[in-house]
Amino acid sequence: MEKGKLLYEGKAKQLFETDDPEIIWVEYLNQATALNGAKKDQISGKGELNNRITGIIFDFLRKKGIKNHFIKHLSANEQLIQSVEIIPLEVVVRNVAAGSFSKRLAVSEGTPLKAPIVEFYYKNDELDDPMVNEDHIQFLKLATTDELIQLRQMALAVDQALVGLFDSIDIQLIDFKLEFGRRKDGSLLLADEISPDTCRLWDKKTKEHLDKDIYRRDLGDIVPVYQEVLNRLEKRGE
Amino acid sequence: MEKGKLLYEGKAKQLFETDDPEIIWVEYLNQATALNGAKKDQISGKGELNNRITGIIFDFLRKKGIKNHFIKHLSANEQLIQSVEIIPLEVVVRNVAAGSFSKRLAVSEGTPLKAPIVEFYYKNDELDDPMVNEDHIQFLKLATTDELIQLRQMALAVDQALVGLFDSIDIQLIDFKLEFGRRKDGSLLLADEISPDTCRLWDKKTKEHLDKDIYRRDLGDIVPVYQEVLNRLEKRGE
Repeated sequence: MEKGKLLYEGKAKQLFETDDPEIIWVEYLNQATALNGAKKDQISGKGELNNRITGIIFDFLRKKGIKNHFIKHLSANEQLIQSVEIIPLEVVVRNVAAGSFSKRLAVSEGTPLKAPIVEFYYKNDELDDPMVNEDHIQFLKLATTDELIQLRQMALAVDQALVGLFDSIDIQLIDFKLEFGRRKDGSLLLADEISPDTCRLWDKKTKEHLDKDIYRRDLGDIVPVYQEVLNRLEKRGE
Repeated sequence: MEKGKLLYEGKAKQLFETDDPEIIWVEYLNQATALNGAKKDQISGKGELNNRITGIIFDFLRKKGIKNHFIKHLSANEQLIQSVEIIPLEVVVRNVAAGSFSKRLAVSEGTPLKAPIVEFYYKNDELDDPMVNEDHIQFLKLATTDELIQLRQMALAVDQALVGLFDSIDIQLIDFKLEFGRRKDGSLLLADEISPDTCRLWDKKTKEHLDKDIYRRDLGDIVPVYQEVLNRLEKRGE
């Protein structure tokens, strides 16, 4: 497999062509951003940690029957994924009130939600990723009605699987963001990454943040925290 | 019917008890507000205009089969309504892109929407009326799933009726906000008001604003504009 030309550069990853048009080469970057890119730093080791964590989680989800784009790791900070057309929606699932949800609705951070809450955001940096409802999604032609039903079902299935995974390593899954892609046959695949960059993870006992809120809220160095999440995932089931 | 004690004072109306616990006495105020109350002015004549316009529209909607709380006018700026428990949701229906919708999704003002778009906002001044989805509404216990289905159906029925009404007087109904209430038997009634304060109305030929955007955007005096809307509604079918 050859690494070809750069296809896309995001805030945390670069995507490259390969000699197989169905396969993309991903390089995880040592870059952290917050506040829609207004805060940005180079953090040595971050790319490796998220590459490894995402791979472990995507393998776990595949075993749970959730189809996703991850193929295999190539190196500490590189992986191969299936090529998909990314649906420009961020699908957020919340189990416990935190972050923007807590602020917008005045629900104290840490309040458990009786049922998971699903939110859709239009992935658009210029517009600051506005929240959208089903009517907006149809007007903007971001996904079909049938795809929206599938996205919600898949997001809730991911939630159920990940709540169990993290619980087994003494971490409470507060909320997370997913992205999905379309394959040429129209089927949907879970895509992007699942890491402490895209999840809120709290230590079950100490309630310490084990996620990007450490960076967003200037609470310290994220590398040892992300490393702790990776260590727990790797030791799981030993 | 006796006017009793003040039950509630909103930005544009005062609600009073009557000797019948099922009936409320409403006084429309000569007050205009915008930007969640940050902009506020006394505007002589506004209360009368909105009282009259709302009455005409609610009578029209009743004839179209849409149940609502309006009973009758009492005076130029007063009306009787049925007592309901207000559902703390603002139900917005959009036919043409404008206002916050245009800004949030970068859709030029005036762009027709192929199908009406329905949005729900949590009626909460302290939180600045945040947009909410069905999961938020259930978590906050603002309405049941069954009520939400009814709210959407009723809002779309109101839209269909009002598009026709305004079209017949050379006005384009751009968007509007509705509120609904529960009766003791659990049934829903259209409530609050429908006026140039709660609708965006554009003259079909000149595209001039015939609504509160005149006030929000400092485009001039709203009284002659609201009077024009009332005149057209009163002359209708003559």
